[in-house]
Amino acid sequence: VSELSGVVTLLSDFGLADPYVRMMKGAMLRQAPELRLVDLTHAVPAQDHELAGFFVFHSFRFFPHGSVHLCVVDPGVDSARAALAVRAAGHYFVAPDNGLLSRVLDADSKHEARAIDVERVGLGTPSRTFHGRDVFAPAAASLASGRTRFEELGPLHAPLCSKPAPAAAKGEGHVLFVDRFGNLVSDLPASALEAPVGDLAIEIAGRRLRVVGTYAEAEVGECVGLVSSFGTLEVAMREGNAAQALGVGRGATLRALRGGWP
Amino acid sequence: VSELSGVVTLLSDFGLADPYVRMMKGAMLRQAPELRLVDLTHAVPAQDHELAGFFVFHSFRFFPHGSVHLCVVDPGVDSARAALAVRAAGHYFVAPDNGLLSRVLDADSKHEARAIDVERVGLGTPSRTFHGRDVFAPAAASLASGRTRFEELGPLHAPLCSKPAPAAAKGEGHVLFVDRFGNLVSDLPASALEAPVGDLAIEIAGRRLRVVGTYAEAEVGECVGLVSSFGTLEVAMREGNAAQALGVGRGATLRALRGGWP
Amino acid sequence: VSELSGVVTLLSDFGLADPYVRMMKGAMLRQAPELRLVDLTHAVPAQDHELAGFFVFHSFRFFPHGSVHLCVVDPGVDSARAALAVRAAGHYFVAPDNGLLSRVLDADSKHEARAIDVERVGLGTPSRTFHGRDVFAPAAASLASGRTRFEELGPLHAPLCSKPAPAAAKGEGHVLFVDRFGNLVSDLPASALEAPVGDLAIEIAGRRLRVVGTYAEAEVGECVGLVSSFGTLEVAMREGNAAQALGVGRGATLRALRGGWP
Repeated sequence: VSELSGVVTLLSDFGLADPYVRMMKGAMLRQAPELRLVDLTHAVPAQDHELAGFFVFHSFRFFPHGSVHLCVVDPGVDSARAALAVRAAGHYFVAPDNGLLSRVLDADSKHEARAIDVERVGLGTPSRTFHGRDVFAPAAASLASGRTRFEELGPLHAPLCSKPAPAAAKGEGHVLFVDRFGNLVSDLPASALEAPVGDLAIEIAGRRLRVVGTYAEAEVGECVGLVSSFGTLEVAMREGNAAQALGVGRGATLRALRGGWP
Repeated sequence: VSELSGVVTLLSDFGLADPYVRMMKGAMLRQAPELRLVDLTHAVPAQDHELAGFFVFHSFRFFPHGSVHLCVVDPGVDSARAALAVRAAGHYFVAPDNGLLSRVLDADSKHEARAIDVERVGLGTPSRTFHGRDVFAPAAASLASGRTRFEELGPLHAPLCSKPAPAAAKGEGHVLFVDRFGNLVSDLPASALEAPVGDLAIEIAGRRLRVVGTYAEAEVGECVGLVSSFGTLEVAMREGNAAQALGVGRGATLRALRGGWP
Repeated sequence: VSELSGVVTLLSDFGLADPYVRMMKGAMLRQAPELRLVDLTHAVPAQDHELAGFFVFHSFRFFPHGSVHLCVVDPGVDSARAALAVRAAGHYFVAPDNGLLSRVLDADSKHEARAIDVERVGLGTPSRTFHGRDVFAPAAASLASGRTRFEELGPLHAPLCSKPAPAAAKGEGHVLFVDRFGNLVSDLPASALEAPVGDLAIEIAGRRLRVVGTYAEAEVGECVGLVSSFGTLEVAMREGNAAQALGVGRGATLRALRGGWP
């Protein structure tokens, strides 16, 4: 059993212009004012639980053990879909049972998943349109503050777990998002490649790029492959915007080639 | 008298790109480093104190009793307009006296309002252009931390209170904002309707829509009415953008019709 | 030696849509969960360390003494550039050695600067692409929490310090940024002018504007000069957007003229 850190991270597709995120924070602080709330991101594209899962999987390990990671993307309000609580890799996760947590569940075979019992942790009768505020947030706060033990949140539950794309094993991946700098971040884990990074080239948008260790090794204006902040392969352009230069974006295929450059 | 929660929420029209919001936070933490600061939203359109008032009114109740809600929209710097402190419904509010707090004042007939005495709570001489940082924020921090009691902030004051639109009583309202998902959120309170939600239809943009309990009850691509996260009527499109589909936005009139659908 | 406030402010060019900022926060909280983290801004244009330096210089004084200000803009990953820690004006600063801290260094001749020794404060081997998370953030957290004393961060270092533009002395400046309201904020310090503000006029975009004490003194629709929230001269339009009205933006020259208006 992990000790609790008192930290709750929040991830959603609510944006920051609308007050939805802050209603969730209020609901948590009302219950447990001592919690530390840290926004992970609220700019996930609407309903994009795949990208949400990628972000939380590659971010959670930088937070203290025993943190609770609250992810509200596409909860399927008032449908039969469960609100899920998961313990894995020394952390806790609260998210809809829509595959968002697949990467986390995959990474720790000893994970334990429970379906949150709304009666036990809610604020009374939840609204029928905003389960983020009325179910997920109170459950996360109750868990993070020690008011409810993980085992008390609800019964054991077999979570929905998306299969990883089979192509990944062959050194092929896809651009999962384009960041503010125009870097193309892929889902291809650097650790899964069969050769050291220095012996690889990347093929994308009909071009072959060399793979370098850091931005500083690229020439100004050169597109290169390198290991992203997420531990996956990315394509970046030194002092430029790779997405614009290559004319590709989310969903583009990239392939890692052994034998290096050229 | 309410106990203090130590939580201060912040709402403004400053955006998050410019550093104005953070100067306000610094001014509060310098005075009272133990406070919990929670952003409500800073994306209110410039000078739109009506929408600001809607947001704070529908959000404050999700925070702990004894929280201070700091709202800086259109403060009318260096004019004769008072900086207002209000105690209502077990919470505290600090805002310019421009009608922003009308809904809060309406909701609790036992509210008490005071005009903040700048000499008493300021950081010395306030700048003449940024009262948010130099007057409102220090007053909120001093109140929230218990350094100044509410009664000591300044003399009793009769606040400006906008009248609610008379049409609301007849089941007519207006779209107050369009959220990130394209949902049209109106100012028509669900509680003011004379019939249960299930017996209603909504008329907007020349169309008649049925009212449902949750998104899940709508067909994919169907526009429906339902109760928003704010407790008012909203128009949403399942797996789509209602604002785009109906071609309307802020200010559009909507009408609740008894007798249900169709 | 300053006492520590436990507050860390964060400024970067990472934006808030991507999860980079939050990875930095996680890295700090994992090491020192008691810290208070306050975002200054993450919307600095990519690699714009000049504007970053302006923001941090004009914001730091509103935070408690002994705060740590973490600025990650254009760190030049894996190059020979040092990661800098500076003690000045009763505050601490952690930033790349690229001139970002020039204004801070200029303002306190007794500043002390050290080159951060990565081995001493890192999380083990830093990634080669994200020094913000793996070097700067842990160093800031270690310093702010008292785990590492300033003198232990690394050896004394002569920091890169940009010279201030010589034109500033002659009452000429440039628009440094345009805020959300269309105000043109310049780098011309009000304190450096040889005449009281009321005796000045401003020349910009071929027009001569009077200088007023507050927005309220301007006519509706009038462009005027006044002292910005940063203590520099700005050009604003009452109930309007000065940048649009004058057709100028960042980089535009403005000149303060003695002898007032007209």
